[in-house]
Amino acid sequence: MVDKKKRRRADDSSDSELDRSKSLPSKKQLKSDKLILSTLKALASEAASTSSSSNNLTLADLAISSTCREVTDLSLSSVQSAIESLTLSLAHSILSGRGFAFSVPSRSSANQLYVPELDRIVLKDKSSLRPYSNVATVRKTTITTRILQLIHQLCIKNIHVTKRDLFYTDVKLFQDQTQSDAVLDDVSCILGCTRSSLNVIASEKGVVVGRLMFSDNGDMIDCTKMGMGGKAIPPNIDRVGDMQSDALFILLVEKDAAYIRLAEDRFYNRFPCIIVTAKGQARCGDQILSVYGCGSKNMSYDSANLTTPDIKWLGIRPSDLDKYQIPEQCRLPMTEQDIKTGKDMLEEDFVKKNPGWVEELSLMVKTKQKAEIQALSSFGFQYLSEVYLPLKLQQKDWL
Amino acid sequence: MVDKKKRRRADDSSDSELDRSKSLPSKKQLKSDKLILSTLKALASEAASTSSSSNNLTLADLAISSTCREVTDLSLSSVQSAIESLTLSLAHSILSGRGFAFSVPSRSSANQLYVPELDRIVLKDKSSLRPYSNVATVRKTTITTRILQLIHQLCIKNIHVTKRDLFYTDVKLFQDQTQSDAVLDDVSCILGCTRSSLNVIASEKGVVVGRLMFSDNGDMIDCTKMGMGGKAIPPNIDRVGDMQSDALFILLVEKDAAYIRLAEDRFYNRFPCIIVTAKGQARCGDQILSVYGCGSKNMSYDSANLTTPDIKWLGIRPSDLDKYQIPEQCRLPMTEQDIKTGKDMLEEDFVKKNPGWVEELSLMVKTKQKAEIQALSSFGFQYLSEVYLPLKLQQKDWL
Repeated sequence: MVDKKKRRRADDSSDSELDRSKSLPSKKQLKSDKLILSTLKALASEAASTSSSSNNLTLADLAISSTCREVTDLSLSSVQSAIESLTLSLAHSILSGRGFAFSVPSRSSANQLYVPELDRIVLKDKSSLRPYSNVATVRKTTITTRILQLIHQLCIKNIHVTKRDLFYTDVKLFQDQTQSDAVLDDVSCILGCTRSSLNVIASEKGVVVGRLMFSDNGDMIDCTKMGMGGKAIPPNIDRVGDMQSDALFILLVEKDAAYIRLAEDRFYNRFPCIIVTAKGQARCGDQILSVYGCGSKNMSYDSANLTTPDIKWLGIRPSDLDKYQIPEQCRLPMTEQDIKTGKDMLEEDFVKKNPGWVEELSLMVKTKQKAEIQALSSFGFQYLSEVYLPLKLQQKDWL
Repeated sequence: MVDKKKRRRADDSSDSELDRSKSLPSKKQLKSDKLILSTLKALASEAASTSSSSNNLTLADLAISSTCREVTDLSLSSVQSAIESLTLSLAHSILSGRGFAFSVPSRSSANQLYVPELDRIVLKDKSSLRPYSNVATVRKTTITTRILQLIHQLCIKNIHVTKRDLFYTDVKLFQDQTQSDAVLDDVSCILGCTRSSLNVIASEKGVVVGRLMFSDNGDMIDCTKMGMGGKAIPPNIDRVGDMQSDALFILLVEKDAAYIRLAEDRFYNRFPCIIVTAKGQARCGDQILSVYGCGSKNMSYDSANLTTPDIKWLGIRPSDLDKYQIPEQCRLPMTEQDIKTGKDMLEEDFVKKNPGWVEELSLMVKTKQKAEIQALSSFGFQYLSEVYLPLKLQQKDWL
């Protein structure tokens, strides 16, 4: 009896140990780097061949270019000409006694359309008139004219300014930065160009490191030689060029701590990749992901340039919490707002078409739990770079 | 009469134009770059000669090293030895039946001292005992022991982690990141080393560009060849070395927009300097300045390493609002909190000893107005880099 009892106890414990080792993914499950790399290389060449054939659909391919609107990158001189032509036509209109008005593409959500074939949001073709001779629109027409004039100056001087600079050039007229910002997006739509073509830039926040070379304002940058700090991503993409890379993938890292781990361990030398971080813009990781993937509603006029439809969700995903046995005390309860965001996202077309995302979001809304990627530190400081990511790559465990 | 009236009107207007041209500092007042540079070079060599003689005062020079406490940069192996010695002494204490306790330097404001000769805050020598065998301190003693163990691991592995990573290694014990963060500062004081010596780093946010070369984790970086984006400042300063520079000064830029302007215009090529930005940490610029200059109260144990006592306040200063005729609509009303901060600062020793600062802060509290540096854009996008800064340098207009 005693023996039996002993044995049972021994069995029990070995069982539970076995369970744990079975379920907590560990280094032992990792195949050789060579094998993982060959999987990744096969995927990369597969992706390259499909993207050259079917994936680069445009509005024209879908025969909706007449009912939808998109902007393109324009050179500074083209922007300058476009402004001059527009001004000339306005002057003609005034001289002929018809006064003047801008025809402004509507950027409201009623004028937005999710196109499943493109997997992104685009702008439909509704426009509204913004006449100067109307009390309701005279102010906005004046602001529009002034912004056009300022952009014209930027073209001539060939310099970049921030939205905030632009606002400060005429505070009396703009009153509030939201007003100059909004008209700036209008001007992009009117001229049919991207906002960066206007030489108005956002603050830079991102950092890049890894298998990428590019020129920044004439200086050649090698991102494998940027130490641990990395290269600050320039805000003016029109002065970025000469890109060269042997990366198999780009790793977009939301959290700074995860970026630091990967940069210090030079993860990109083990698995050729480019590591990018935007440094914790995030409140809700999966919402950020949808903006990268399908575009933001605010900038839907430029979704072709701003989206990465083949972006994948690597982790930490809601299902990882149990799979990687994230300790209960490392899990965070979701706020009411988080849960609402999750539920709202489940209603979106671009989520519905991805069963994997639906499953993860449903799980999250059900468990009401989330985790930061730093929670992996509870298994060791280098678990992220030495186990979690290599295993994800080996198992193609992304959505 | 009519003539007279006309003439007076004409006079009036020319007077006011003259006034305006007299008082709005413009490009015309600028001397040649060569002249400005020779002024700056003279200042730089003067500063170099004084700093080598009197300015590098230490606690020992003032004969207060026995009553004040400071930490130093220690090598990883020294930190490791210090932890091992400490652990050994604790083990001896336990074995001899005396139990164990940490002697923890107090970091409270009652234990802080502003030393005018050093122009910074230092920590006095008060310590308190943190015994394990006391209900009130058993938790904190356990946390301290755990943090020491984790730091010891970092020493052995020779890797860096963030405070957040550290917290996540034992959420159950730490409960809240403020608790692990606070004990981390305690551990710095106990071991007598800087926090960066512990290989625990803060998130990186800063960017540098200009006349500086340094090595980041073995990679040599030339900050004149970092385009407009610049080089992200590495968070782990112990892997930064081989600094070379011919800069005459370092320009610390608080606002990202100002940084972008100076980087795009390659201001550092006109006036040899290093341009650094921490990217808008700021709510109240002058308070930030005092932290750079005299140290933060929270980290006063490391003020010798973290302060730059000879930092100057260039602008925009409260008196610049009128001097540079910042339009009324570009001025921002100060909040109640801003005004309170200003008044509190006027009471601080390190402000009182600088009459210029007192004057500026008094003016600000009186006018209840402030301005962002972007307000200079109302005189043209490049007024900052082409007029304001060169003129400030020419006139040595800093405090």
